[in-house]
Amino acid sequence: MAERSLVFPAAEFRARARRLRAAMNEAGLDALLLTMPADIFYVTGFLTRFWESPARPWFVVVPARGEPVAVIPAIGAALMGRCWIDDIRTWNAPDPRDDGVGLLVDTLAALTPQDGRIGVPSGAETHLRMPLADFRRLEARIRPRLLVDGTDVIQPVREIKSEAEIRMIREICAIADRAFARVPDIAAAGVPLAQVFRDFQIALLQEGADWVSYVAGGARRDGYGDVISPAGMRPLASGDVLMLDTGAVRNGYFCDFDRNFAIGRASDKARRAHAALFQATENALARMRPGMKAADVHRLLSGALADAGHAPLCGRLGHGLGISLTEWPSFTPLDHTVLREGMVLALEPGVELSPGRIMVHEENIVLRAHGPELLSRRTPAELPEILP
Amino acid sequence: MAERSLVFPAAEFRARARRLRAAMNEAGLDALLLTMPADIFYVTGFLTRFWESPARPWFVVVPARGEPVAVIPAIGAALMGRCWIDDIRTWNAPDPRDDGVGLLVDTLAALTPQDGRIGVPSGAETHLRMPLADFRRLEARIRPRLLVDGTDVIQPVREIKSEAEIRMIREICAIADRAFARVPDIAAAGVPLAQVFRDFQIALLQEGADWVSYVAGGARRDGYGDVISPAGMRPLASGDVLMLDTGAVRNGYFCDFDRNFAIGRASDKARRAHAALFQATENALARMRPGMKAADVHRLLSGALADAGHAPLCGRLGHGLGISLTEWPSFTPLDHTVLREGMVLALEPGVELSPGRIMVHEENIVLRAHGPELLSRRTPAELPEILP
Repeated sequence: MAERSLVFPAAEFRARARRLRAAMNEAGLDALLLTMPADIFYVTGFLTRFWESPARPWFVVVPARGEPVAVIPAIGAALMGRCWIDDIRTWNAPDPRDDGVGLLVDTLAALTPQDGRIGVPSGAETHLRMPLADFRRLEARIRPRLLVDGTDVIQPVREIKSEAEIRMIREICAIADRAFARVPDIAAAGVPLAQVFRDFQIALLQEGADWVSYVAGGARRDGYGDVISPAGMRPLASGDVLMLDTGAVRNGYFCDFDRNFAIGRASDKARRAHAALFQATENALARMRPGMKAADVHRLLSGALADAGHAPLCGRLGHGLGISLTEWPSFTPLDHTVLREGMVLALEPGVELSPGRIMVHEENIVLRAHGPELLSRRTPAELPEILP
Repeated sequence: MAERSLVFPAAEFRARARRLRAAMNEAGLDALLLTMPADIFYVTGFLTRFWESPARPWFVVVPARGEPVAVIPAIGAALMGRCWIDDIRTWNAPDPRDDGVGLLVDTLAALTPQDGRIGVPSGAETHLRMPLADFRRLEARIRPRLLVDGTDVIQPVREIKSEAEIRMIREICAIADRAFARVPDIAAAGVPLAQVFRDFQIALLQEGADWVSYVAGGARRDGYGDVISPAGMRPLASGDVLMLDTGAVRNGYFCDFDRNFAIGRASDKARRAHAALFQATENALARMRPGMKAADVHRLLSGALADAGHAPLCGRLGHGLGISLTEWPSFTPLDHTVLREGMVLALEPGVELSPGRIMVHEENIVLRAHGPELLSRRTPAELPEILP
């Protein structure tokens, strides 16, 4: 076969469907309707970059009794046919008269009772990846069945990674570790940041990433302005702190961590901030345990930063990851999700050094019974310097 | 500035907002509410790969009178502040109590009359990039204002590219042309397809792509099985036809075209199919004119393939592109969109050589008054051979 086969044996996917059915039965749902790439990959193993085209909706229905059904554009039949799903229904998309809604209505009607409740992920970190007008048509045509929020079914299942998933995330983290180790060969005073971004993506691919879905970063004297901007043409200058952050992908699984480098000698200010970020992460690595809440991790990180005399960044200080760059939960004071064994998480403390100048630090871990196990190679305690 | 500045001068964006306001006034809408990355980039110039994280919703409101307002997570304030938008309202996301809905309700309420109609793109090629539960809350809280379909406002405006946009798309097409020219150095019998995909992405970056959002392809004897699969580890073999398709990005603009290569000597079957695809494209290049419909282009392409004795692929045979890998319209028998000067389009005829074995061919053009102008370098008439 020229084509790639399933990332995992079918047993992995059967177990996921079983867990989803159990959660549905507990929640009183008769089916889940999934439209997002990550959810569809999770249930079926259907891995493609074709999601980049917004032209066609894709549907997977997971009934509370029975195996998942794919309701998809005909262009995806061959690839879905190499996954473990037996029941694949297709239409010739795009079709402006009916772009799969009729086929989806028939499928849901056959799989759920008339007074059924169908879960559609509708909460935090979810979107509806289909035209809203088609969703309204679906809602009208499926009555008296109700489309209700299914987030509480899919979130707790996806949050716990299997050992097979953890191996995949460890593999892409190791790829990123090797690429980060090459940054001193890529970045130097005088090199435009845009060139550093390009060469870092090349390094990630050379080290084994299938593709690079996310690279961000920044470089300014003693910190950077934000962590989401694309790179500009300004050359790196001695005294800059360079940060690179990546969500590279292998076999559909993401890493998500960053590294900092001083261009030339690190200033005391930058070294102290890096040390505070390192220590905050040490604090969380030593103390995180299953049973804590996401908000507790925020407290561990922000408390350590405050103890070191630094103002923690607003917003979240970490999150889940795996088949998306970011997943539930969020390390904020407001997220009371209970942490459990098998969660894969990014610890991401950040500080504001001066108005508009920040530094961040990120590691990926899997939570075990005894505490965190690192998936990324631990960043050095001292801010590394890239010297001429 | 380390950070990249706006891709275009502010005048380009002001003109876009003007065109959207004119379309809104014609449609009787009081505002547009935008949530998708492409729409938000189109109006504001806000360019980031941070969309990869599904954690936070982002909103841009374009009122029928007045300039656009950004209602966004605080993490994006610095980058949006370097765009041309003056009115930027932020909240500290993610916030499980209210993730921007209240701020958005206040914004919409201040900008539209009580009986106002607010357009939300809801038709083909659109999604709602916010949690559905939050959209339902918004809909309830904004009453008696109505959230109605805004596709007919945004689609005709985005479909016509400015000369500045056409220059950007021409630039990324030229980058992809140079990367495709290097495929004979990358692909050969014995090289696994996954390695070809990796090296092709590296070539795209080296030739100037900012990032590579899409690579797909296939390689089998006399064609390939589908055009959306990720690459597997099967080595290329003499007799294969290799196809690579890319949507690479520079300054936020996509190319989307593919190229075919025979590994070793091309068979008569593969050469004939390639010639038929080439001729079908020639037919469309010679005859497409503004005023035709999208369905007419489907007829030009599929008619020429049928004349050459080939069965056209089901599904669409091309589409728009620009700030998404694919955009409206679709070259299907059912799409009656009228073609206009300034549309950037992918011509993408495909044939089925035998059950489960296809070949496709793709060029990017801009439609001028006199007909198509190529943006990709025309593929050679003869299927190129990669010989040992």
